[in-house]
Amino acid sequence: MIAATSVPDAVSKLGDGKEKRIVWLMLPSGTPTEIQIQDLAHMLSKGDIIIDGGNSNYKDSQRRGAFLAERGIGFMDAGTSGGIWGLENGYCLMVGATPEVAKTIEPILIALAPAKDRGWAHVGPIGAGHFTKMIHNGIEYGMMQAMAEGLDLLKGKEDLNLDLAQITELWRHGSVVRSWLLDLTADALKEDQELTAVAPYVADSGEGRWTVMESVEQGVAAPVLTLALQARFRSQDATGYSYKLLSMMRNGFGGHFVKSVGD
Amino acid sequence: MIAATSVPDAVSKLGDGKEKRIVWLMLPSGTPTEIQIQDLAHMLSKGDIIIDGGNSNYKDSQRRGAFLAERGIGFMDAGTSGGIWGLENGYCLMVGATPEVAKTIEPILIALAPAKDRGWAHVGPIGAGHFTKMIHNGIEYGMMQAMAEGLDLLKGKEDLNLDLAQITELWRHGSVVRSWLLDLTADALKEDQELTAVAPYVADSGEGRWTVMESVEQGVAAPVLTLALQARFRSQDATGYSYKLLSMMRNGFGGHFVKSVGD
Amino acid sequence: MIAATSVPDAVSKLGDGKEKRIVWLMLPSGTPTEIQIQDLAHMLSKGDIIIDGGNSNYKDSQRRGAFLAERGIGFMDAGTSGGIWGLENGYCLMVGATPEVAKTIEPILIALAPAKDRGWAHVGPIGAGHFTKMIHNGIEYGMMQAMAEGLDLLKGKEDLNLDLAQITELWRHGSVVRSWLLDLTADALKEDQELTAVAPYVADSGEGRWTVMESVEQGVAAPVLTLALQARFRSQDATGYSYKLLSMMRNGFGGHFVKSVGD
Amino acid sequence: MIAATSVPDAVSKLGDGKEKRIVWLMLPSGTPTEIQIQDLAHMLSKGDIIIDGGNSNYKDSQRRGAFLAERGIGFMDAGTSGGIWGLENGYCLMVGATPEVAKTIEPILIALAPAKDRGWAHVGPIGAGHFTKMIHNGIEYGMMQAMAEGLDLLKGKEDLNLDLAQITELWRHGSVVRSWLLDLTADALKEDQELTAVAPYVADSGEGRWTVMESVEQGVAAPVLTLALQARFRSQDATGYSYKLLSMMRNGFGGHFVKSVGD
Repeated sequence: MIAATSVPDAVSKLGDGKEKRIVWLMLPSGTPTEIQIQDLAHMLSKGDIIIDGGNSNYKDSQRRGAFLAERGIGFMDAGTSGGIWGLENGYCLMVGATPEVAKTIEPILIALAPAKDRGWAHVGPIGAGHFTKMIHNGIEYGMMQAMAEGLDLLKGKEDLNLDLAQITELWRHGSVVRSWLLDLTADALKEDQELTAVAPYVADSGEGRWTVMESVEQGVAAPVLTLALQARFRSQDATGYSYKLLSMMRNGFGGHFVKSVGD
Repeated sequence: MIAATSVPDAVSKLGDGKEKRIVWLMLPSGTPTEIQIQDLAHMLSKGDIIIDGGNSNYKDSQRRGAFLAERGIGFMDAGTSGGIWGLENGYCLMVGATPEVAKTIEPILIALAPAKDRGWAHVGPIGAGHFTKMIHNGIEYGMMQAMAEGLDLLKGKEDLNLDLAQITELWRHGSVVRSWLLDLTADALKEDQELTAVAPYVADSGEGRWTVMESVEQGVAAPVLTLALQARFRSQDATGYSYKLLSMMRNGFGGHFVKSVGD
Repeated sequence: MIAATSVPDAVSKLGDGKEKRIVWLMLPSGTPTEIQIQDLAHMLSKGDIIIDGGNSNYKDSQRRGAFLAERGIGFMDAGTSGGIWGLENGYCLMVGATPEVAKTIEPILIALAPAKDRGWAHVGPIGAGHFTKMIHNGIEYGMMQAMAEGLDLLKGKEDLNLDLAQITELWRHGSVVRSWLLDLTADALKEDQELTAVAPYVADSGEGRWTVMESVEQGVAAPVLTLALQARFRSQDATGYSYKLLSMMRNGFGGHFVKSVGD
Repeated sequence: MIAATSVPDAVSKLGDGKEKRIVWLMLPSGTPTEIQIQDLAHMLSKGDIIIDGGNSNYKDSQRRGAFLAERGIGFMDAGTSGGIWGLENGYCLMVGATPEVAKTIEPILIALAPAKDRGWAHVGPIGAGHFTKMIHNGIEYGMMQAMAEGLDLLKGKEDLNLDLAQITELWRHGSVVRSWLLDLTADALKEDQELTAVAPYVADSGEGRWTVMESVEQGVAAPVLTLALQARFRSQDATGYSYKLLSMMRNGFGGHFVKSVGD
């Protein structure tokens, strides 16, 4: 490993351009990735390759791939799942690239992917890697939401006084819902199943939103992926304007009691 | 109008039982209606009629109709829509009864319904009145929710700084969404479109819930009616346990930031 | 009314450019509107105004407004609701424009809008007209879906043998769900409530989709507007691949019977 | 293993009633289970125990438990997950019972559960076993639907020509969505990812429906579990009456083209 103090410095240390240079970016999607790829386009030469290992929108990756191709620079979009647990639990790489670029990068992917010939796959042309990762995350949203709703109902059945840590641990052993998400959930519930310290606020990232937009663009119903995203939106909504509207309408037509702020 | 001090007193003032006696109940659904009908069953005689003008579950009405029929007492379930606005704006009556009972009650319905031969209808056998009313309310939930979501999005588009009172008033004149619910909404928004004093809490009544159960029993998808009900459930959920679970899971697999209580 | 054989001919007949020329377009959104506005930009002069009375995406309108402003040409986006029923039932115009352009066009809007000072409104800057129209249509989707689901449940309750034409007609008189959509529905059901000749296929237009995308962009939950759109997607899906997947999974883990093509 | 030709014969072979007799039922829920338990109630004696290992509604189990308790007969509700794969992959048992009954049955559960002290758990009082199993299945519905929607979108992105067998196999190795359901899906897609022979029809069983009813009874939003169930309802709906209604309404207000049967 050789340290570098700047991107130009790093690029210079990759050699003088006589050999193929490969730059693997792991940056936040959007502007940071965009700027870096634009910059690198001027530092790199024909035959070099840029890999975007971040969570970019696949349309950006397609656009960037075309832009770099005009300059003779190769591009690979590599969606990564497994996150911070990768080292311990493995992770997988979904790769989009031309066959030529994929062939060049293959030895690196084999070296990187913990499950040798199974922890990565060249799933299609440029953009296919990030597209596949996007859908993966959409599914993840849906699975998480299914789990959260079910556990909410277990907890809500107060007269049975169920132990959610016990039940999720049990489900890990032979049930149909066994999954890595369940493993994590069972672990977390062992500590404090009331989740006293956790705020009822769920952030969302680009990929969940892009998946829903994709379903609109394709004209394909994806109610569960969509509602999972919208549950997060709800959790982020501190004002509840739509609820206020509903309460006001109810009062309007039925003289129903309106709960006032402060009640 | 003759005042009575108790139900037995009222029944006695309806005559000595030589003529048909008709008792119209307007009570909260559930126990109050149940008790009253049980009591009346012992005070009334063969040929008398009980009308339940409240919001009972249609299955209760069917059961009560059968119970009273065994005693020779007629029954009518009359769902009413229009609520407190009835006097000014009219209301409508959805009536379930045997043809005989319906024929007996017809003069009363004609006298009561503001829109003479259009403000009431004998829609079917016992239970049909409350069933029709239940579905009416389910639709109402959906329409209200559609309106609330749309207005929420208008408000959320902050850079356009839209005037919701102006827009809802405009829509009343010729648009496809013109409706009584829109009339009420436009009126209410004229006063304070921020709805500052209204708490973001929406109550729900039995009929919205029964409609969703009906869709489950029939095995018929009713996503909009269901989600409209669940939006109200969300507004009533002060703890947000499912959001806590999701936030905790996110943290588990991605090391994502968890918003803590107090943040 | 003066006939013209081409757009350049029409523009020339609007005068020699010494007076303000106003061109009102009513074209399909997307490419046809785009091409026409690009063409007109070269035929018109400073001070002239283009009105887009079609169903354009508000972002396109904002972009076109800025493009025309660079050339000194005014722009107005006018969303129209009421469609083919406008002449009989009125319609309403939601207008986005600068105050100057709005002032110029005002006499025309007053002349056009059937409900004089109530059938149109200048709701905000360029784009606000089409944005407001978009949300209007989103609400319309939700209201239609609510109605359709409710009627589906009425019909599904076979033992009550309900007459949907009778019930929808009744609801028009005093109920909470009375609305123009209900008027149309009641009318249509009078003829054939089985809808034998109608295919179970519902088309969708841009505005329903854009509304859902707007909810994703704003991060605002709009479950009913979204599910109403997705119900249409479902109706358009002839293959049912997701159902096939589910059936296959069910078989996989439970040995459940899989219905085969041809069963 | 001793064969018996009838239930009375089986009961007699369990001994003369001096020792505790334990009867484990694995029957379809509803009437078959009800009849059998009623019958057994008359054949068994005080201290004997009936175990319902089927998929009964937890309310039925609570009622039956109370009914048997009056006769001094113990009851255990044992929800089982893992189905036909149990022998190979393990399965888990969710058990509801009084502490006394649970203690009596414990040796049997230890013997039966493949993952010794982890493949079963006494989760609460009578009813708790079937309640937990019901929620388990609700979650399963949601997870399956999430997976199906995501794969549908992968397939719908036709220009990327993705290989769903490759991608689901890849996801099994390190991704966040890895799960038993994914294992099964990946396996099945290896054969024919078009699923040509599978009809787009998904059956549903009681537990998915009961979970949605539970959410209505608790007043807890469970959009994903509900929409997963409703997707199955849609797949079962051959008529599409709600779509016909929507299409008819669209035609009514906009003169939109209505697709006729036969188009």
